[in-house]
Amino acid sequence: MNLGRVVGSIVATRKDERLRGHKLLLVQKLKPGEGGQFIPSKGSSEFLVSVDLVGAGTGELVLYTSGSSARNAASESYDNPIDAAIVGIVDQTDIDERVLIL
Amino acid sequence: MNLGRVVGSIVATRKDERLRGHKLLLVQKLKPGEGGQFIPSKGSSEFLVSVDLVGAGTGELVLYTSGSSARNAASESYDNPIDAAIVGIVDQTDIDERVLIL
Amino acid sequence: MNLGRVVGSIVATRKDERLRGHKLLLVQKLKPGEGGQFIPSKGSSEFLVSVDLVGAGTGELVLYTSGSSARNAASESYDNPIDAAIVGIVDQTDIDERVLIL
Amino acid sequence: MNLGRVVGSIVATRKDERLRGHKLLLVQKLKPGEGGQFIPSKGSSEFLVSVDLVGAGTGELVLYTSGSSARNAASESYDNPIDAAIVGIVDQTDIDERVLIL
Amino acid sequence: MNLGRVVGSIVATRKDERLRGHKLLLVQKLKPGEGGQFIPSKGSSEFLVSVDLVGAGTGELVLYTSGSSARNAASESYDNPIDAAIVGIVDQTDIDERVLIL
Repeated sequence: MNLGRVVGSIVATRKDERLRGHKLLLVQKLKPGEGGQFIPSKGSSEFLVSVDLVGAGTGELVLYTSGSSARNAASESYDNPIDAAIVGIVDQTDIDERVLIL
Repeated sequence: MNLGRVVGSIVATRKDERLRGHKLLLVQKLKPGEGGQFIPSKGSSEFLVSVDLVGAGTGELVLYTSGSSARNAASESYDNPIDAAIVGIVDQTDIDERVLIL
Repeated sequence: MNLGRVVGSIVATRKDERLRGHKLLLVQKLKPGEGGQFIPSKGSSEFLVSVDLVGAGTGELVLYTSGSSARNAASESYDNPIDAAIVGIVDQTDIDERVLIL
Repeated sequence: MNLGRVVGSIVATRKDERLRGHKLLLVQKLKPGEGGQFIPSKGSSEFLVSVDLVGAGTGELVLYTSGSSARNAASESYDNPIDAAIVGIVDQTDIDERVLIL
Repeated sequence: MNLGRVVGSIVATRKDERLRGHKLLLVQKLKPGEGGQFIPSKGSSEFLVSVDLVGAGTGELVLYTSGSSARNAASESYDNPIDAAIVGIVDQTDIDERVLIL
């Protein structure tokens, strides 16, 4: 899983039927930075569009899963197209600054 | 899932039989940029060739899925070679600029 | 799927039995560049070794698939180790320069 | 699998039920560096949140697995959302400096 | 699949039971460079820890597979945590310098 922040949502009227009933949230991938802050994780997977399994809202720090693990968790239907799902809302992170390398 | 724009199509006369009947669209991966614009997501997955499950056309902002989720969504045939599928046409994005980090 | 060019082949005498009967082609991942050219896609997945399902030769622009989609497409044997397969030979690409961002 | 160091943990009170009973550890991905040290692996997968199958603690050098291999290893439930799991605590690495390219 | 060189091994006394009986080899991912040499592939997947299905030794140029293809190839047990496996020892590479772009 990875950490990210919900930065918005996507509206798609024309979409695969199997996505109906799911909110599509835009998530920015984050990583630990200086002073306990979370900063953007740079590279080709900086953002993703995720369904939400836990009631996450914009601005919240979340835990998301990817790939077939997201598909299986999000729906009982084997053929659903989901490849990203928010599975937790982060209340607290406990990072040991002595072992983290920034 | 991720956001991208359909920038063209691919013609392959000699191809795996299981791809027949599918348009092969070239998609450029995008991410949020300044002023509500979408800009290219840089790195090794900037472009992909995707089948289309929703009738997307060149120039449209789309939602696509990857890996086994695309394969399962695109075909009832377990052994099809598809690993990317367009599953939505984006009408609107609602991004909270206060939480997005550019 | 992605675009690449076959740049050579690999000979491995000692290999997993389930790879026997497959040519192992070295593919360079490509992306659209200036003037309708295809240029290398930089990053950690610039090259891959792929089996060939369509009779591709060195120098050809090809379409390849990855991961479990390649495994399923390449063999009826569930336990084969294949994770990349060439599934098309590209005859033509039709790119709209007005929407592509280089 | 990859090498990483456990740098902390994540608390998520609101989370998918199928994550209950698992500690969620923050892992920093590492690679070999000068003088037998392990240094951060830079790029978009520098950090991950992993469940722990072997009793790892903060500061330990660990071996983790990703994707569907992590899901299958972590739970008998097919639909669990896990996509990363710590599967070993590294006691020793034996690297041949003559063949490693730094 | 990808090309890499075995640069060492990992010892983990405390590990998932399903990894027992497998050597854990540290592999450096490589790509074609100038003059027929293979050079490190830079990015976030420069190194991996792989099981060995073909008897590879330190210093050898190998072919490895990733993800669920590695898991299925490495073990009859569906729930094993393996996500990388060496499946060939490269004897020869035949690269056409006229089509390779360095």
